Amino acid sequence: MNQTLKFVTLTCSLRVGSFNAAIANALPELAPEGVIFEHLGSPGLFPHYSTDTEAAGFPAEVLAMAESILKADGLIIITPEYNHSIPGVLKNALDWLSRVSPQPIAGKPVLIQSASPGKLGGVRAQIHLRQILGYFDARLLNKPEAIIGEVSEKVTDGILTDESTRQFLSRQLTAFRDFAR
Amino acid sequence: MNQTLKFVTLTCSLRVGSFNAAIANALPELAPEGVIFEHLGSPGLFPHYSTDTEAAGFPAEVLAMAESILKADGLIIITPEYNHSIPGVLKNALDWLSRVSPQPIAGKPVLIQSASPGKLGGVRAQIHLRQILGYFDARLLNKPEAIIGEVSEKVTDGILTDESTRQFLSRQLTAFRDFAR
Amino acid sequence: MNQTLKFVTLTCSLRVGSFNAAIANALPELAPEGVIFEHLGSPGLFPHYSTDTEAAGFPAEVLAMAESILKADGLIIITPEYNHSIPGVLKNALDWLSRVSPQPIAGKPVLIQSASPGKLGGVRAQIHLRQILGYFDARLLNKPEAIIGEVSEKVTDGILTDESTRQFLSRQLTAFRDFAR
Amino acid sequence: MNQTLKFVTLTCSLRVGSFNAAIANALPELAPEGVIFEHLGSPGLFPHYSTDTEAAGFPAEVLAMAESILKADGLIIITPEYNHSIPGVLKNALDWLSRVSPQPIAGKPVLIQSASPGKLGGVRAQIHLRQILGYFDARLLNKPEAIIGEVSEKVTDGILTDESTRQFLSRQLTAFRDFAR
Repeated sequence: MNQTLKFVTLTCSLRVGSFNAAIANALPELAPEGVIFEHLGSPGLFPHYSTDTEAAGFPAEVLAMAESILKADGLIIITPEYNHSIPGVLKNALDWLSRVSPQPIAGKPVLIQSASPGKLGGVRAQIHLRQILGYFDARLLNKPEAIIGEVSEKVTDGILTDESTRQFLSRQLTAFRDFAR
Repeated sequence: MNQTLKFVTLTCSLRVGSFNAAIANALPELAPEGVIFEHLGSPGLFPHYSTDTEAAGFPAEVLAMAESILKADGLIIITPEYNHSIPGVLKNALDWLSRVSPQPIAGKPVLIQSASPGKLGGVRAQIHLRQILGYFDARLLNKPEAIIGEVSEKVTDGILTDESTRQFLSRQLTAFRDFAR
Repeated sequence: MNQTLKFVTLTCSLRVGSFNAAIANALPELAPEGVIFEHLGSPGLFPHYSTDTEAAGFPAEVLAMAESILKADGLIIITPEYNHSIPGVLKNALDWLSRVSPQPIAGKPVLIQSASPGKLGGVRAQIHLRQILGYFDARLLNKPEAIIGEVSEKVTDGILTDESTRQFLSRQLTAFRDFAR
Repeated sequence: MNQTLKFVTLTCSLRVGSFNAAIANALPELAPEGVIFEHLGSPGLFPHYSTDTEAAGFPAEVLAMAESILKADGLIIITPEYNHSIPGVLKNALDWLSRVSPQPIAGKPVLIQSASPGKLGGVRAQIHLRQILGYFDARLLNKPEAIIGEVSEKVTDGILTDESTRQFLSRQLTAFRDFAR
């Protein structure tokens, strides 16, 4: 019998009511059976990474996020695109996580979803993120890719309402569940 | 007659005594005539970017850095590589600067220098940074590229002592001065 | 008085009646005053690059293309996206051109246009191409970027008919003319 | 009991006596038990890809390579770096392979090795290649990465003689065997 899988979600826009949060909130109802979700804490609570700060001790928020990822069956990163790459706050979170031992993303199934108001849906952020996660030795789902363009027309009052996007994410989550098993 | 050019330097490792700082500190003595330098403030003083924080008003440190870049004749970014990309703290600084009006890097001559203890000298960070700066409409010096590998053997007590690196940077600064003019 | 500028165009899909050719053919009528165009020969006529073949002598087609680019005031590359990058045939042409002395793209104003039937318009090909051309020391126009999605709906019988794309390209060509001057 | 695995190798420099060929030839003696190798045909025999050529029928060389990859337990691509990316001839081979049905690289374990005379060992080619192969849905080994710099000092008379490179490749092949099983 298949056991229940737990996926943790990391959203990388700090804006209250962000499109990223709308997508993250929609995932549980779009997921196939046998999957539960947990939101990770905000990467906005991490200090800027420096080896000096690390030497003084890992922040509790970093250790908590690392622990949650380590225990999860899969990690879902939902990100906007800022200036043709991922937000600094996401990169900073990854910089911290890379220093925790055991590094929690190594060998972990990872799913990426990007969204932007423009037509390109954050694809450039996603390219950088995939490269970075290769170094973490993440097990990235290659296909299908969730590149959600014109997201401002697909979210209404903080709810992901666009039906074709919902159906696509549902299929992607099923693929990710099978990949993570 | 050629006027004096002012270059501002941005270092992106927050570590006290970082290799980046050693390189930044060496530049004035390696530069050709007619060039003066000014260190920008630390990007570690910026909060994490969010549209909510921006809406509450730009932090003074962000506005000060933007103003210094705007007035300068060229920007030099010196960066380590973290996890196959630029540090989160550098990306966060760029995310803030991209929102200031006028955006200070548009049309600005920019020089990139990367350094790492490994053989690859931060080349992967540099690839991401060049892509990001294209979106800022920076005028990037293409060649020669400063990709400084094995930097821990080239810096002694916080001083860049490696003679061939010093000569290379001297040539690069001359090329950048001519490019910026 | 401003002199007439000559731009040479390189199209990288070998298909008869390709979307790339439709775009290239539309450029003269969309361009501002003071610009003339010339199509470069097909990169499909170049052999696969190898140092052995080069040692036996540069193919005439390679030398002719290099000469045309060298004499031009700007180079326009129009490319589809194959497998998240540029077509092999375009990369092969660049591999050959990089070996000619003087290397004809060094310092040359270059404009990139990509097109694809999908929504993303070949942006991933464009990212690779920009990186590659940095190594050639090309002077790339950063903005505006021509990323033409859903191109199959914008070309009718081999003619670029979509009005908003035509207007965009017209503005881009004006920006490129000013950049090349 | 573990069965024997067959890995096919693709070398992408067409030069007789290339460094790539030296590496490919060394692999059998460096591999762990239970692995056999087969060289794929030269990608230099493929015509330039175009949909018109494809419509006239797939070249026999393309079909033969696709068949060999499909039957193999893993694919090893050994590539030089040309102009900050992979050679055109390799991209052209991939453009052809992407069109064969079933696409032979989908789900296939793939190992990348790059080599260059410079210090950076073809890392930039490898970045592009990893991105491209993600689209093929390849199962890429993330670590360890074989980025072989200063290769001209490591190959003598067409033989890979550098002992530390040989030991590294031996470890990498063991990791790839375990990954492919």
